[in-house]
Formats: sequence, C-alpha cells, structure tokens
Amino acid sequence: MLDESNNWGRWGAADERGALNLLTPETVLAAAGSIREGRVLGLSLPIRGATSSPAPTTVPHLRGRPLPQHFMSVDGGDYAAGTRAIGAGLKMADDALVVTPHGTTTHMDALCHMWSGEELYNGHPAGRVRSYGAGRCGIDKAGPVVARGVFFDVPRIRGVERLEAADRIEPADLEACALDVRPGDAAVVRTGWPLAWRDGPDAYWAGQPGLSADAGRWLAERDVCLVASDNAAIGGLNARQLADEGLADDLHMILLWRHGIHLAEMLWLEELAESGRTDFLFVAAPLRIEGGTASPITPLAVL
Amino acid sequence: MLDESNNWGRWGAADERGALNLLTPETVLAAAGSIREGRVLGLSLPIRGATSSPAPTTVPHLRGRPLPQHFMSVDGGDYAAGTRAIGAGLKMADDALVVTPHGTTTHMDALCHMWSGEELYNGHPAGRVRSYGAGRCGIDKAGPVVARGVFFDVPRIRGVERLEAADRIEPADLEACALDVRPGDAAVVRTGWPLAWRDGPDAYWAGQPGLSADAGRWLAERDVCLVASDNAAIGGLNARQLADEGLADDLHMILLWRHGIHLAEMLWLEELAESGRTDFLFVAAPLRIEGGTASPITPLAVL
Amino acid sequence: MLDESNNWGRWGAADERGALNLLTPETVLAAAGSIREGRVLGLSLPIRGATSSPAPTTVPHLRGRPLPQHFMSVDGGDYAAGTRAIGAGLKMADDALVVTPHGTTTHMDALCHMWSGEELYNGHPAGRVRSYGAGRCGIDKAGPVVARGVFFDVPRIRGVERLEAADRIEPADLEACALDVRPGDAAVVRTGWPLAWRDGPDAYWAGQPGLSADAGRWLAERDVCLVASDNAAIGGLNARQLADEGLADDLHMILLWRHGIHLAEMLWLEELAESGRTDFLFVAAPLRIEGGTASPITPLAVL
Amino acid sequence: MLDESNNWGRWGAADERGALNLLTPETVLAAAGSIREGRVLGLSLPIRGATSSPAPTTVPHLRGRPLPQHFMSVDGGDYAAGTRAIGAGLKMADDALVVTPHGTTTHMDALCHMWSGEELYNGHPAGRVRSYGAGRCGIDKAGPVVARGVFFDVPRIRGVERLEAADRIEPADLEACALDVRPGDAAVVRTGWPLAWRDGPDAYWAGQPGLSADAGRWLAERDVCLVASDNAAIGGLNARQLADEGLADDLHMILLWRHGIHLAEMLWLEELAESGRTDFLFVAAPLRIEGGTASPITPLAVL
Repeated sequence: MLDESNNWGRWGAADERGALNLLTPETVLAAAGSIREGRVLGLSLPIRGATSSPAPTTVPHLRGRPLPQHFMSVDGGDYAAGTRAIGAGLKMADDALVVTPHGTTTHMDALCHMWSGEELYNGHPAGRVRSYGAGRCGIDKAGPVVARGVFFDVPRIRGVERLEAADRIEPADLEACALDVRPGDAAVVRTGWPLAWRDGPDAYWAGQPGLSADAGRWLAERDVCLVASDNAAIGGLNARQLADEGLADDLHMILLWRHGIHLAEMLWLEELAESGRTDFLFVAAPLRIEGGTASPITPLAVL
Repeated sequence: MLDESNNWGRWGAADERGALNLLTPETVLAAAGSIREGRVLGLSLPIRGATSSPAPTTVPHLRGRPLPQHFMSVDGGDYAAGTRAIGAGLKMADDALVVTPHGTTTHMDALCHMWSGEELYNGHPAGRVRSYGAGRCGIDKAGPVVARGVFFDVPRIRGVERLEAADRIEPADLEACALDVRPGDAAVVRTGWPLAWRDGPDAYWAGQPGLSADAGRWLAERDVCLVASDNAAIGGLNARQLADEGLADDLHMILLWRHGIHLAEMLWLEELAESGRTDFLFVAAPLRIEGGTASPITPLAVL
Repeated sequence: MLDESNNWGRWGAADERGALNLLTPETVLAAAGSIREGRVLGLSLPIRGATSSPAPTTVPHLRGRPLPQHFMSVDGGDYAAGTRAIGAGLKMADDALVVTPHGTTTHMDALCHMWSGEELYNGHPAGRVRSYGAGRCGIDKAGPVVARGVFFDVPRIRGVERLEAADRIEPADLEACALDVRPGDAAVVRTGWPLAWRDGPDAYWAGQPGLSADAGRWLAERDVCLVASDNAAIGGLNARQLADEGLADDLHMILLWRHGIHLAEMLWLEELAESGRTDFLFVAAPLRIEGGTASPITPLAVL
Repeated sequence: MLDESNNWGRWGAADERGALNLLTPETVLAAAGSIREGRVLGLSLPIRGATSSPAPTTVPHLRGRPLPQHFMSVDGGDYAAGTRAIGAGLKMADDALVVTPHGTTTHMDALCHMWSGEELYNGHPAGRVRSYGAGRCGIDKAGPVVARGVFFDVPRIRGVERLEAADRIEPADLEACALDVRPGDAAVVRTGWPLAWRDGPDAYWAGQPGLSADAGRWLAERDVCLVASDNAAIGGLNARQLADEGLADDLHMILLWRHGIHLAEMLWLEELAESGRTDFLFVAAPLRIEGGTASPITPLAVL
C-alpha cells in the first residue's frame, strides 16, 4: 500500500543512477541557458503498430525483433456500427500498446541492460535482475535527463549525407565537431543511418555505423551523463546485427557498464541536423517502468 | 518506406493540435524563465507490472482496468541458471511492456479520446478513429508540452491534506490560488486523491474529487494549453467511476472536445506540493504512438 | 454474474454454428467407429515465442504478421538467482502468451472471420463485429469438431513430395483420392506446403497452393462440416499473399460465408500422410474466446 | 529451419511426458468404447477479454491474476466507418489474444509448472526453465489426452449443490463414487465451486474446496494419467489463495511433481453433472506452446 515513504517525484538512490548523478541544479540552470530560440524538436521515431497491416515495416527497426502492437479497445468504428454512447452522448476511444523497446523504437537503456560477469554497473548483483523485473538499476531508478545537449553531426563533418554501415566514428570525428563538452552534458551523435531505410529493410539491416571504442572512451573521459544516437547500438553492428568488438572495447561495456553513462538509441536526428544548432536543452523522461531494462521515450531538443 | 517527406521531428498539422498551438517560441522562452532553482521533479506514478505478484494493487488505478504487464524476455536469472553469455562475455536483459494508459497510470489524452456526435475536436470525422488507430487527432499529432506550469494546490488552499471524493473544485478555489495564468500555460491541479490509496483500493474507488464544469470553463477562458491533475478524469467521479455531469458540463467535453485543451491525468503531485513552487517549466513528451488515444508519460516540473 | 442461465458446456444457437449443425450424436458415433489403431497424431505447428531470439522464423508463417510472443513471469532462472520458494519449498513457473492466430499458427476460423457486404454468414449483421469482439458468429459459438476425418493427400495422388506455389487443387484431384465423403465429415486436405519452409521464408512466401473454387464447391456439395488444410488460406495465394479469385470464387466466400463451413488452416499433416490412413476420428476443440475471429488449436487425428 | 527431423505430429520423449505414457493404443481403443450416446460436452469456461468493459469479472478467476485481453485489429465497425473492402469486396475480422492461463481460465498444467529443490519431475534440471520458456517438461512435450474419463461428482455423493470453501475431498468420497478406475484414466473431479461466483467474486475468493493429500494419493495409486477439476488448484485453497498443506502433502507435489500426473484446472462441469454419465471419452489437446507452463484448453467429454 501507498504510504508515508512514497516519494515518486524523486529517483533511485545515487548508486543506481550512474552518470545521471552529474546532473545538479547548477547543470540544469546552465543547460536552460542553452535555450535561445524557443523551438522544440522531437527526436523520436513513430511507434507504428503491427497488427493487420504491413505498416510497421515502414519504420526503421532491427531484424527479428517483436514489433510494437497497438490495439483499440473501443473506437469510432464501433459507434458507426451502432455502439451506444455513454450517458447523454459521450463517446470514447481507448487503446493498448505492446512494446519491446530495444531495437524497435527510440528508447533509453537502463543501467541493468548489459553487463559482464556477475555484477551490473557499480557492483550491483546481476542475480537481482529477474523475471519480475530488475531489482537493481532498472529504468525506474534513472530519473529524467534534463541536460545541455551537445550535437556531434558526424556526416556533416565528413561531408556525406549519412555514414556507411562499415563506418566507425573516431575521436578525430568528435574533435572535428569542435564542441565545448562539459561534465553532465548529453552527447547526441548523428550517423544518419535511419536514412538507409529509404532503400528498404535489407539496406538498413546490412550493418550499422557507430562509435569506435576510442570514441566511446573520449566521451566517457569528458563525463557526459548520456550518449544518444540515431543508430541501434551506439557502437557499430555487423550484418548479423552484432557488435564486433571484444569485451574491453564494446560500447555498452565502456559506457553503460563501466561508467554508468546512460544510452539512448534509435533517435531521429534529421531536423536537428537541419537546425544547425550544436547546443540546446536536451530532455528525456523515461517512463517509470519498475524494473524495466529500457523505456520508449520521445527525447526533446529545446533550441 | 521512409522518404523525403518524413519530418518526424515535427508534429501534426495545426488543426489536429488544439491548444498546443498556443505554444510558440515566445511562450517556450518565457516558460524557460520559470526555471529558478534547477531542481527537477517527476510527476508520474510508477508502472508496476501485474504478472505473478499482487504488486500492482499497490499503485493507484481505476477499478476493472487492465493493469500494466511487464515481462523480461531474458534476465539475470537465466544467466544464473546457465545461459551462455554473448560472444566474449556480454550479458543482457530485455523486456516488454503491455500498457493500457487510461485509468492505470500517468498519461496524456489525445484529442481523439472523447467526443460527442459524429465529430471529434475541430470537426474531424469520428469515423476515422478505427481499429488500427486514430487517423485523426491521435497522440502522435499532439507533440510535446514545453510550457510554463502553474500549480493549483487546492488542498493547501482549503487547509486539508486531500480533497474528499465528493468535493468539486470551483472557480473560487482556482482564484484563491492567486496565480497569474497566461495563454499557453499548463494548469496543474492537485486534489491529493492518490493519498486515498493509503486506505486501500476501496477508499480510492469510492469516487474522486475533481474540477467542476465552471472551473473547467474558468481554465478554458484563460487559454491554457493543457490541464493536468492527480485524479483520473480531471472532473470528479462517482462510485461507479463515472462523471455525473451532463454533456454540456462534462469536463472532457468542455476542455478536450470543445477547446482542444489536452488533458494529463493520474499525476503524482506530492513532492511538487512540498516544494512550495507555483510556477515552473512543465515538460511532457508523449510517445509518438501512431493513432494512439493517449500515451503514458513522465511529466517533469523543472523548478 | 454467473447465474442459472450459464450453460457453458453447450455451444451457440444453431443459426451461428453453420455446418457444425451437421454433427449429431449419430455422426459422432459413426466417427468413433473410424478409430481402429488407437494411435493419436497431433496436427499442429508449434507456437514458438518471438521474444529475444530469432527462433520463430523457424516455423512457417505468413509474412508481416505479428508472431506469437511467450513470456515467463517466474521461472527456474529466478530461483537459481535467489528467489525464495513459496512456503515450505514450492517453486513454480508461470507464463503468458500473446497470439494473433491468422497466418501465424494452426487455427480454426470463426464464421465472423470473412464476409462481403453488410452481412456475415446466415444474414447476421456485420456491424455486430466490433472492437470488443464479434457479437455474432464468434469462435465461442462454434463448439468443437468431433467428426470423421477424410484425408485428401493430394501430393501423393499427384506423385510429388509437395505441391508448387502455383498449383491449384481441382475436383479431379479430390475424386482421385477415392474417398467416401459423407455429410458431417471433416475434409483434411494436404498440399505439403509447410515443407517449402525448409528452403527458407522466401520460398514459403512465394505464393501458396490451395483449393480451386470448383474444388471448394465439390466439398460444399458433399456437406462437409469443416475443411482443414496445411496451407494458410484453404485457397491458393499469390506472392503478395492474397487470393486471386473474384468474390464468387473466393474459397472463404464459398465455404465459410455461403455455406457456414468452418475452416482450419496451417495444419501439420506430414505424419498423417505417412500413416497411410484416409479416415479417422478428427477432433478440434477451439478455445471459447468470446467474440474471437479464430482460435489456435491442436487438431487431433485418432487413427 | 524446418528439416527432416521435424515430427510435430508426435510429442516429447517419454521422460518428459509423465503419466501420459500410460496412454497407449490399447487404452485409446478402450476409451473410445466409452462413447455410447454420441453427445459432446465442452468443459471449459469462456475466455472473456478485459479491455474497456468490466465483463471479465463475470467469469470465475483467482484474485489478482492478469485477466485475458482480446483485441480486434480489424472488425465490422471499421467497415461501417468507411474502411474499404479488400479487392472485389472481401471484408475480414482479425484479432489477438493475451492470456495468462493459470488462475484465469480452463487450462492444463505442464510438468514444469511446479517443483521443489533443484529438479523438476523425473529429475529434469529446474535451471532449464528460463525466460524464453521451459527447456524441459514444457506443455509442448505433453501431447494430447485421449483417455477414458471417470467422473467423481463429489457434491452429488454428499447431497449438496456444491462444496464449501473449507471442504476437503477424502478418499472415502472417491470410493463412494463407486467407479472402476483403470490405469490411464483421466480423473475428473467436481467440487461445484464455480457456482460460488453467483454470489460474487468475494464469495469465490473466500477459499476453495479441493482434494485432500490422501485423496491425491488414492488417485496416484490408481495410475490415472490426469486429474482435472473445476477448482483452481486441485487441492484446496485458503482465503489468501494459497494451499495450506506442507510440501509432502501438497497436491501439485504429489500428483504433478512426484508422479508426473498432469493437472487440468478451472473446468466447467455442470452439464457433465447433469448428464449422469460417469465414464466417457475425455479429450484435451493443449496448444503446442514451446516451453509453456500450461495451455488454455477446451476439454471435451464425448458421452
């Protein structure tokens, strides 16, 4: 039962929040200072339900993942067919969503999402991640990201529309963006890979560009609170949709597991790229799914 | 297929966005000016999966609604039982969520959620709301709310811990809050009703306090972009969990249907009440569920 | 509330049961007479959950359909990781299934599944088939099939391992099987098409063999109660997974809609083919899903 | 990929099928001999979807379990609202089901459902029951039950309409039924408890009557292949919906775990009771859910 100890307005304890501890009233106030135009961009892909139609195949996603399903439990069609209005004339539509965030839509990873050995980030026991949810480091512990966003538009730096599947982003690419990265910033990295979907699923599934291990370390050294990208795994993927790096160089291991840096994947960054802005207020507010390994999100860039 | 016309960073056309059209670069810049402390509060209830345990009964929800279900498709228990790590030692947890937002958790209503007659808000045909989603006025059209929040802490005004089930909030209560409400503000109204859950589900299900029709009109006249509350239906509910007002006085009809004012329900406002703050930056970023009647959200107050 | 009128042991009224009305105590007794060996064969594909693994792609299904999802809400891994046993030592596994039967697994169609114009089979209004289920002709009305099965092993007649995608079964094929078809029999028609999956999904998706319209009429004239096949749509499909026939010749229209003959699709008939038996007791017991358009089933052949 | 080794018409290996190994061609032929009238009764509760309506509360189920959800992905309402027919005029209804069988509807338990210590029935390692399903003793291994049913109508023996929550069925009750129980029979035990739902959920949830440990042993000694009942747990339950017996006397431990006797629960036996028949052909064909802990079923009594 709900009792005096509920404080749902706040987050998990510091030892389960990783790099989000870098967010302080001071960084929030500084980040708010990045709002200059007042425009708001959404950085998410649509969640397109796979039910009777082939429609979901028109949104980028990893091969073989269970796609989102969206169901209406009452809708306008029912009233057209004769369903009686409620009381004096109210009509309503109601629905349900089934979603498996990783690989299917824009989401933020929980710190329990990946690990090696017997321990999650910060030594939390991996055995606490069970069928009824993660007892440690779930997405409910993370809390929201309200931070200064810094935008690494790598295709722009390289003079291409988008990276190729085999491309890996190196520290030199990040340096070339000439951004003033500060502790607590949210690093937003564009590969342009969602544009590969224009050529069909097979083109998108041919692999994915992403950060090299060194680029991951470059970001970790700068104490960012989050790394967000428009690819599916921050690091690159091969055609079997797997990372090729060894354990020491795996991007999830470097960022999420060792440094507690949260990851957000499968963002849509095209309008942000068009804006020309490289710093802004970045906001991501994961659903407080207890014990969740991730949450679908609609990240925002307030320019 | 994804093509040149995708502009997922932006929202639906103006005629499907209702009062969110009141949000402009100017209001966003003004709202950002409400950030003074840099503290961030979450305004959502936890999403607690109903699977093997009775746990979900410990979070406020309407009687008889399908509760959220959260499933792990691989977890730490599997590795403890012998599942092999990926490649050189990676382990991962993955999960799925089934959620029916209305009545079960903190959510934002789409403009297609309620109507009367044959037309949705703004004359959109209700017959376009079908089994595969709302073709008009879905939550994917709304876009995010980045606005100045104004907080009506009604129990504080009335000198009580929380309102009673039969209480209705009148314009005088809102006036007594002495807030300077401006066009495009997000009105956040506290009833304290989630605290009734301390006494068990039956206490919570005995009815709900909420806005009176006149209070709804008071807010609509002030051109707020959104009304958010910690009750389940903005207006009050009787013990059968229904609104008692006629069509002309129903809060969803007044706010959502006639004025296109978005509604957010089942917020958790207790820490916000403790903060003493009455204006702040309010952010809500609904998932871009195509044709959705609502989205679960984690609204934020940046103080 | 459950009351005196519940008679869940029986089925829907005669006007919603179609050709299953042909099943009488006499036909059941006669069908039982087909049991000669006492062997029992299952005629269903496995239901393989699509969660973290690519496993479901190893079971035949139509392209683009939402695959079954199977989730464990508590399992042996949890106990291996430290979950406490119940009471003095009980441990349990519990799970959930999400299934969309058409096109993904062995199932039986309800009479509400397909129609033309404004009326379902037998003149029932199509407008009663709404978001909360089919008010008429749902699978809950059908009741079970306990009938004499007659087996048309068409590849055997044609001297091939399996039919090709463009093959259509003609009345002559059915005649060649030389079976004594009686009113109330369940006609089981083998195409061998699931074997195409050996060559991968694309081979299976290249189209499907099936009954021609004339063969459908041939069966309807003989008053069978059900037509079951190992293809996905009884009739043939083209490479876009659609039927090519016009309305008058569509197999679902001929059998399900005009004659109320139930259809069972995506059976697995390979061991039945090996058995050499052409008559047997056929049993299919659909789940009593209220208002369902189909039910997953495990049909049985008792030889 | 599907290959030569697929033999989906048959079941799991003998060491995962428990007492279903007692079913042989001889027992099947003998069971078929129990068909005398040719009438077929269904023994299942309806599966009533919990979506927008309170309807599911009208079907007996255990408190706090996730109720079935049934969604239409296209229906007659959509066509009434203007959805275009397929091709020359075909219309279709399609749907999806979410079901958690234990405690919510008529189902058959897999041998992996309950255990003690580190081993399932027959020494299979419990650690193989993981998030992606039971690698051992899943419901897909069981195969169907085609057996002689023997009916223990305990309320009739005791001269009551239904048993009370605290009643436990003793060997003397089973003896009083004066049935000739043979190896491989399916024992069907009526308590009448679903009738308690007439008085509302709270009456049903007050506890449940069921078999005593000695009655369980009485059945196990007679080598039945399955025990089916209209209560939720074969044994009795207290008001917290738990079994009170210690590990040695728990009905699931005695029957399922030690003897490999499959259990079917939450049957509807009222019409069977009215029939006056005590032997018949009993058929239950679980869905072949790979790694499932149970399957919803519609058991049949062929009288």
